[in-house]
Amino acid sequence: MELQKYILKTCKDSKIASSVISYADTNQKNQALKNIIKIFDKEADFLISENQRDLIVSKKKGLSDALIDRLKVDKNTIKSMIQSIKEIIDLPDPIGSIDGMKYLPSGIKLGKMTTPLGVVGIIYESRPNVTSDASSLCIKSGNAVLLRGGSEAIHSNKAILFCIQEGLKQADLDQNIVQLITTTNRDAVGEMLKMSKYIDIIIPRGGKGLIQRINRNSTIPVIKHLDGICHLYVDDNYDKQMALKIADNAKTRRYGVCNALETLLVHQNIATDFLPDIYKIYKAKNVQMRGCKQTLSMLDIKKATNEDWVTEYLAAIISIKIVKNIDEAIWHINKYGSHHTDSIITNSYQKSNDFLRKVDSSSVMVNASTAFADGFEYGLGAEIGISTDKLHVRGPVGLKGLTCQKYIVLGEGQIRS
Amino acid sequence: MELQKYILKTCKDSKIASSVISYADTNQKNQALKNIIKIFDKEADFLISENQRDLIVSKKKGLSDALIDRLKVDKNTIKSMIQSIKEIIDLPDPIGSIDGMKYLPSGIKLGKMTTPLGVVGIIYESRPNVTSDASSLCIKSGNAVLLRGGSEAIHSNKAILFCIQEGLKQADLDQNIVQLITTTNRDAVGEMLKMSKYIDIIIPRGGKGLIQRINRNSTIPVIKHLDGICHLYVDDNYDKQMALKIADNAKTRRYGVCNALETLLVHQNIATDFLPDIYKIYKAKNVQMRGCKQTLSMLDIKKATNEDWVTEYLAAIISIKIVKNIDEAIWHINKYGSHHTDSIITNSYQKSNDFLRKVDSSSVMVNASTAFADGFEYGLGAEIGISTDKLHVRGPVGLKGLTCQKYIVLGEGQIRS
Repeated sequence: MELQKYILKTCKDSKIASSVISYADTNQKNQALKNIIKIFDKEADFLISENQRDLIVSKKKGLSDALIDRLKVDKNTIKSMIQSIKEIIDLPDPIGSIDGMKYLPSGIKLGKMTTPLGVVGIIYESRPNVTSDASSLCIKSGNAVLLRGGSEAIHSNKAILFCIQEGLKQADLDQNIVQLITTTNRDAVGEMLKMSKYIDIIIPRGGKGLIQRINRNSTIPVIKHLDGICHLYVDDNYDKQMALKIADNAKTRRYGVCNALETLLVHQNIATDFLPDIYKIYKAKNVQMRGCKQTLSMLDIKKATNEDWVTEYLAAIISIKIVKNIDEAIWHINKYGSHHTDSIITNSYQKSNDFLRKVDSSSVMVNASTAFADGFEYGLGAEIGISTDKLHVRGPVGLKGLTCQKYIVLGEGQIRS
Repeated sequence: MELQKYILKTCKDSKIASSVISYADTNQKNQALKNIIKIFDKEADFLISENQRDLIVSKKKGLSDALIDRLKVDKNTIKSMIQSIKEIIDLPDPIGSIDGMKYLPSGIKLGKMTTPLGVVGIIYESRPNVTSDASSLCIKSGNAVLLRGGSEAIHSNKAILFCIQEGLKQADLDQNIVQLITTTNRDAVGEMLKMSKYIDIIIPRGGKGLIQRINRNSTIPVIKHLDGICHLYVDDNYDKQMALKIADNAKTRRYGVCNALETLLVHQNIATDFLPDIYKIYKAKNVQMRGCKQTLSMLDIKKATNEDWVTEYLAAIISIKIVKNIDEAIWHINKYGSHHTDSIITNSYQKSNDFLRKVDSSSVMVNASTAFADGFEYGLGAEIGISTDKLHVRGPVGLKGLTCQKYIVLGEGQIRS
């Protein structure tokens, strides 16, 4: 009951604060962000020492090195948090722009004005920089934000929050524009997901388990992606060197990212030409290959099971399948993929068009590496997540994904007959 | 178990059919729609006689005259169904258009292509014309549609479905692009709402109870509006004749529609000037008025309770409140309204801007009647519903609301460093 009251009050405060930030003009929002940069800079030692407290507890608990690494805040982390905010300051204010204003037959003038969503809920694990990045994006887009970080990062998150709220205060803005749920009660997320009256959208950041759990229990719309099972289809009408270079880059640039390649689809006509060469490249980088039956007759690799086609390895593993033609490739991608990012290598005008039209993914590419599917590469500035859902926003989500539009009507006394 | 199997199979068939319609070109989609017009025309007697069967049962069951009226299909209904389809044929194809194509620093070219959503689920009551309107909008926007109409209209809906599927067949398109769930089992809707793997969006059409039930139980995103509690705020800097004309039109044009006025907010400075005249107009039309305490000192009307500010009357009733200034008006609208449509009467440039920016509704108007909030008036063509949600689509929903976008990347062999 205490927990419910606490969450309800926090949500109500966020809702009230959301009006304040939604009415703020560009200068005021940028001023708050500039203040935060100054305070991060001034309070660097405090941020690092608070983070130390989290690190000590986490090491005692025996958390993995990877997790500890993600949790760590040092001078470089703070520098990159500041760099992110600088970039967000430089982005144009997304709020209040009016699109498509036109006169209608009745004489009224109709357009669409961009507005904030209201209150954005972010549920995330480990990385304390999310506290700063997500808050800055929400401030710039006129939204209040309600943060729920992992318990392992509680002191770090509280310290970062202190700086952000101080920055808001110095810009004469309500500190509740950015709030953090600090209770150690593990039911807090469950309560938060019931607050559809106060929270407009939930963005989970973390492992697949966390995101699935949130999606299943939320009464609030969720912007998310669960998997990044990305494909590269190498067509028979192709530039071999380009195909090798892109298949290499998309798989081996970084293994743990959602836009990394997981399945390579190869046209049967060029399989004997292409596969031995990509095999050498992957072999040299210790990438484990798993092939369909036909592939096995050409390469000395492990057999792929049906499970492989639906697995995001996030590791130095790739599955390989030989397909009859582009239709089978598209069918495979739409059936087994995760609608994240898929690319074709082809010299054919017709096939490039076909692939672009028929592949049902948030990013569809021709002759480019899937690694480009990223808010920064797409010119969106900072990224609050990637959506593989179709509604509201699809693909990398930047400032614009945190806004919506309303119709505005300018009349001169018109009534409807 | 039988029901589950039936719904699952139907959903799977819709998913398969959604590829077919999403790949269809504009001519093929328009041809299907033209065929349907011809078949409606040819089968008019069949449609009317099947509808008679529904009418007989409904009369026996003692359904209200209003419901029976909405259920009825006659020559005029068929004519207006045909007229709707003609308008949809004339609308541009929303699918495949590419926006904002540009070169990025890496050399890749990035744009956004419009695509269908996939499978649209429509759950509706009574009106058999929804079967035709919704199907036509989905066909044109490249979506498959799964319909669940009310049991009272089952024969009418089946007859209309027969014509639509025949029209699809004659255009060499999969008949499953439009399907109707025909079982009399009342759990069918519940099963349908679990099929988030196959259905991309649910659009409920009907009473508030139906929509609330669907929204609560759906694992699939819902496009909806529950209430249309629309406000008109009459500012003190105003054109009295305009205010009277619009307050009259917005309330009395039609009482049962969602964009009708429910609450009139009046600036205290002009209350004695304005209220007696609008009182006369409403009185003459038998509109029952309910006023705040201050209003009661000027007009001989019923007292409004707190309940009145959150009630959509859908009837010849209006609530009236005197406010101190525009800030109180905006506060009242955002607190008690339903975020549907709200309008201000003012001559002030500053106040018009303030109202447009701060009122958090799907349509915000200056010096115009709320009655204009409508897909047809907004130039969207036919309307599949109105959304008061903020995500994906807000306001009247036409063809464009049934689409989404995907990023497309055109490269020349680029890899990411």
